[in-house]
Amino acid sequence: MARGRLDFYYEFASTYSYLAAARIGPLAEAAGVEVTYVPFLLGPIFAAQGYSTSPFNLYPEKGRHMWRDLERLAAHYGLPPIVRPATFPANGLLAARVATALNDASRPGFTKALFLREFAEGQDISDPAVIRQVLAGLGHFCDAPIEAAQSQANKDRLRAQTERAQAAGVFGAPSFVTPDGELFWGNDRLELALDHAVRGA
Amino acid sequence: MARGRLDFYYEFASTYSYLAAARIGPLAEAAGVEVTYVPFLLGPIFAAQGYSTSPFNLYPEKGRHMWRDLERLAAHYGLPPIVRPATFPANGLLAARVATALNDASRPGFTKALFLREFAEGQDISDPAVIRQVLAGLGHFCDAPIEAAQSQANKDRLRAQTERAQAAGVFGAPSFVTPDGELFWGNDRLELALDHAVRGA
Repeated sequence: MARGRLDFYYEFASTYSYLAAARIGPLAEAAGVEVTYVPFLLGPIFAAQGYSTSPFNLYPEKGRHMWRDLERLAAHYGLPPIVRPATFPANGLLAARVATALNDASRPGFTKALFLREFAEGQDISDPAVIRQVLAGLGHFCDAPIEAAQSQANKDRLRAQTERAQAAGVFGAPSFVTPDGELFWGNDRLELALDHAVRGA
Repeated sequence: MARGRLDFYYEFASTYSYLAAARIGPLAEAAGVEVTYVPFLLGPIFAAQGYSTSPFNLYPEKGRHMWRDLERLAAHYGLPPIVRPATFPANGLLAARVATALNDASRPGFTKALFLREFAEGQDISDPAVIRQVLAGLGHFCDAPIEAAQSQANKDRLRAQTERAQAAGVFGAPSFVTPDGELFWGNDRLELALDHAVRGA
């Protein structure tokens, strides 16, 4: 039985969401925390803050540091070297819809595998062919997940997840929210969030 | 003999600079890293990025998270509970000038003690009386440090330190820079920066 619960809010275009997605599985298992994966879209949340694109593009020095930081952290965590996709931030809409359409058992594997394509292979995750390859690699050999992703009901579900993120105070990705409403922002806070999920306030 | 070197760039108005200042002494000593304390002003650096004040004030949700994060981290590190100063960000000009005027032996103690006044007691560090009390607590019983701080030569030194920060790519505080030019932004990166200072690239 789980000793605690945690909502993991992530956006497929987000570099630090990649690091969190790569790490959260074993860390949560070791802590006995049950994780709910909640893909959402940063676009509307950034727009509400007045950002037209990623702050890493708006502030070039911050962006330079982020890419270097990402390289260092990937090495630190034992992840493959970073390969920057040609376009940043990627359009993560289809990816988020597919992740939303998958069931709870398939979502974590898809999330982790697609992030690896994006930031360890530099692939364009807005390309349906890339998403299809990742799905096939996980045993989904037909277009059903992509078709389900494009249904109105699923689009609405993703929109509701983004609204849920906003209601929880999420302003960036990744974010972690515990059942008592504590919000932890950033891959750097994953350990503290897991700890809080177990210990409580 | 030191096994490595590190420049520690900090701004007295910065909450995460407080956490770094509270932690860097023993961590650097344990790692065998010699730290150069470089107070600087974020104002000109934020202005160059188009910010009129702290991003934590410009983005209320980010600001709310920062204060809660600070409380949690203070508890995590075993620091006193956070007491928010009435004005944030404080005007850290005089504090930075005094820190600059002090010698290398006195600067770390002054830095740590003034930050404690600011974020563990909620005092206004732009108030010369608060700075005088901190100086007295460290054994400086006359106004010489404050007078030295206001000399043109010292003002120029602080300005040069801010320019040196900008030249090193610093865009926020705290930041750590190793002799090979690696920039690490944020209290969260202190350990990695110390590690890099020892191991090299």
